[in-house]
Amino acid sequence: MTSVAGIEIVQESAPRAALEPLTALVADELQAVNRVILQHMNSQVSLIPQLAGHIIAAGGKRLRPILTLASAQLCGYQGRRHIHLAACVEFIHTATLLHDDVVDQSNLRRGLATANALWGNQPSVLVGDFLFSRAFQLMVADGSLKVLKILSDASAVIAEGEVQQLITSNDTATSEKDYLAVVGAKTAALFSAACRIGAVVSERPEDEEFALESYGRNFGIAFQIIDDLLDYSARQAELGKTIGDDFREGKISLPVILAFARADDGEKAFWRRCLESMEQSESDLTHAIELMRRHGVLADTAAYARAYASDARDALAAFPPSPIKKEMLDIIDFCVERAY
Amino acid sequence: MTSVAGIEIVQESAPRAALEPLTALVADELQAVNRVILQHMNSQVSLIPQLAGHIIAAGGKRLRPILTLASAQLCGYQGRRHIHLAACVEFIHTATLLHDDVVDQSNLRRGLATANALWGNQPSVLVGDFLFSRAFQLMVADGSLKVLKILSDASAVIAEGEVQQLITSNDTATSEKDYLAVVGAKTAALFSAACRIGAVVSERPEDEEFALESYGRNFGIAFQIIDDLLDYSARQAELGKTIGDDFREGKISLPVILAFARADDGEKAFWRRCLESMEQSESDLTHAIELMRRHGVLADTAAYARAYASDARDALAAFPPSPIKKEMLDIIDFCVERAY
Repeated sequence: MTSVAGIEIVQESAPRAALEPLTALVADELQAVNRVILQHMNSQVSLIPQLAGHIIAAGGKRLRPILTLASAQLCGYQGRRHIHLAACVEFIHTATLLHDDVVDQSNLRRGLATANALWGNQPSVLVGDFLFSRAFQLMVADGSLKVLKILSDASAVIAEGEVQQLITSNDTATSEKDYLAVVGAKTAALFSAACRIGAVVSERPEDEEFALESYGRNFGIAFQIIDDLLDYSARQAELGKTIGDDFREGKISLPVILAFARADDGEKAFWRRCLESMEQSESDLTHAIELMRRHGVLADTAAYARAYASDARDALAAFPPSPIKKEMLDIIDFCVERAY
Repeated sequence: MTSVAGIEIVQESAPRAALEPLTALVADELQAVNRVILQHMNSQVSLIPQLAGHIIAAGGKRLRPILTLASAQLCGYQGRRHIHLAACVEFIHTATLLHDDVVDQSNLRRGLATANALWGNQPSVLVGDFLFSRAFQLMVADGSLKVLKILSDASAVIAEGEVQQLITSNDTATSEKDYLAVVGAKTAALFSAACRIGAVVSERPEDEEFALESYGRNFGIAFQIIDDLLDYSARQAELGKTIGDDFREGKISLPVILAFARADDGEKAFWRRCLESMEQSESDLTHAIELMRRHGVLADTAAYARAYASDARDALAAFPPSPIKKEMLDIIDFCVERAY
C-alpha cells in the first residue's frame, strides 16, 4: 500500500495473474498513470478524493488504461501524451462504475463495499460527474480534437448502452441482437476508444488506428460475454467467487437468452418467474445453471466469445511481431479461457 | 405547443414576463438553439429523447443559452457558432438538473413531475450522462479548444460545488463564505461560462471576455441568492408559488445563515431541530419566516444580492450603449427586484 495525498492505493503488484506479462511491459508508464490519476482526482472538497480514491484504488486491474499504453507501444510511440490519456480513459470508466452502482443499487464491487453503499447515492452521482469532467479537462490539456471526438463519442455511446440495458432488464424477449448492441455500446466502446487513442497519439496511418479500434471493440465484446458467462459458472463457484449477481438482478445476458430460446414451456415459465417477476427462491440459481448445462448454453456462449476473440486477434495481423503484440494477443486468450 | 420528432415543446412564448425584452432580441437564434437541442437529444434508444424531452421542453426559461446569445450579440458576433454552443450550455445545465433531482429526491420541478419521479432514478442518472456527453460532442464539432476548456472547467467546478453543498446540507455551522463558495461553483460557474463563450466566438479582445465572464459570475450569484431568498418569501406565498422547499430539505442558504447568526439560544435550538435533526412540524416554516423578518434577514439577503448585481452591471461598463446591453442590464434589475 502507498499513500499519496492521504489516499491509500492498492499497488498493481497483484493483478490477475494472466494480465501480469502485459502489465509488466507497461509497468513504468502505468505507475505514471496512477500518479496522474491521484493528482487529478484531488479537490479542496475532501469528500471527492475520499470517494474517488475508494473506487479507483480498490484493486481495479486498470485494463482499459493498460490497453491505451500497450496500443501506443505497439505503434512505437515515444512520447508521454498516452499517460494522461490513459488516465482519462480510467476516469471515464470510473465515472460509469460509480453511476452503474447507483443504477444497479449494488452494495459490493470486487468484494468491497461500493461507494454508494458507504457514502450514499448522492455523492456517488456527483463524484462520477466530477471525474467525467476531469477526464475532459485532461483531454483539453492534451489538446487533440481527434482524441476529444473519440472519447466524447464513446461516452455518449456508453450512456446509450446503459439506458438500453435498463430497458432490456427483466425482459426475456430480449434478442441476441439487442444484447450485442448493449455490450457493443456499454463495454466495447471504451475498449475500442482506449486502443485507438494509442494509435492516434503515435500519429500512425489511419489503418493502424482502425486496426486497434477493431482489436479493442472485438476484445471488449468477448470480454463482456465471458464476464456474463462466468456469472453462471460452476467453476467460478468452486473457486469461491460470487456468482448469480446478474441472475438476482434480472439481467438478460447471453446465457439467459440462449437458455430461454431452447426452453420448453415449463422452463420458459421458470425464467419468466425468476427474471421478469423477480420471484426467486434459494435453489433457483442452481436450477438455472443446471438448465444452461442441459442445453449446452455455456459452451455456446463461450463459442460466441471465441468468435469475437478471433476477430480481435485478426485485427492485429498487420503489426509485425513484437513482445507487446504477443502479450496483447495472449490476454485475449486469457480472457476467453478463464471461462474454463 | 410544437411537436418535433414526436416530442412536444413548450414554446418560449411565455417566459417570465421580465425576461421577454431580452428574449425578443435573440428570438430567432433561440428558435435555432431549440432545433439543435431537439436534434441532438435524439437517440435510437427512445427512452432518451422521451426523458430528455420532458425536462428540456418543460417550460424552462432558457436563461443560460439566452446569455450566450446575448453576449455574442453584445460583441457584434455575426456567425452561427453561438447557436450550437448555447445548446451545449443548456445540455450541461439539463444534465445537472437531472442529477440534482436524483440527489435531492425531488418530485416536482417548475410545478411538473421530475424525470426521476416519472421514470425512476436510474434513467435520470444515465440520460444526464448522455446529455453531458452530447454537450462535449457538440463542442468538439465546433472545434474550439478554448470553449472546450471553459466548459469542461465549469463542469468540474459545478460538480465540486454540488458535492460541497451536500456536505454543508443540514449543518447550521455553515458560514457565509462556505455558502458563497457553493453558489459560485454550483450556479455562477455556468452563468459565467455561458457569457464568456459569447465573447470567445466573437474573437473579441480578452478584456471583453473577462468582462462578460464577470457579468455572468456576479449575475449568477445574485440570481441564486434571490432564488434562495424567495424560498422564504411571504410575497411568493401570496402569489401562490411554492415556498419552503429548501427549508424542508434542510438546505443551509444565506437567509438561514443570517438568521442563525442573529438567533438567541432558543432560536438556535429551533433552527437545529428543523434543519439538522430534520424534525419539522406544520407551523415551523411560518415561524422560520417570522424569525427572518424579525431579524431583518430577508432585507439583508437582498442587499447581498444587490451588491453582486451592482458588480454585474459594472462589468458591462466598457461596452457602448446598445439595445442588447440595455436588456442585459435590465434583467439584472429584474432578478433582484423580483424579491419584492
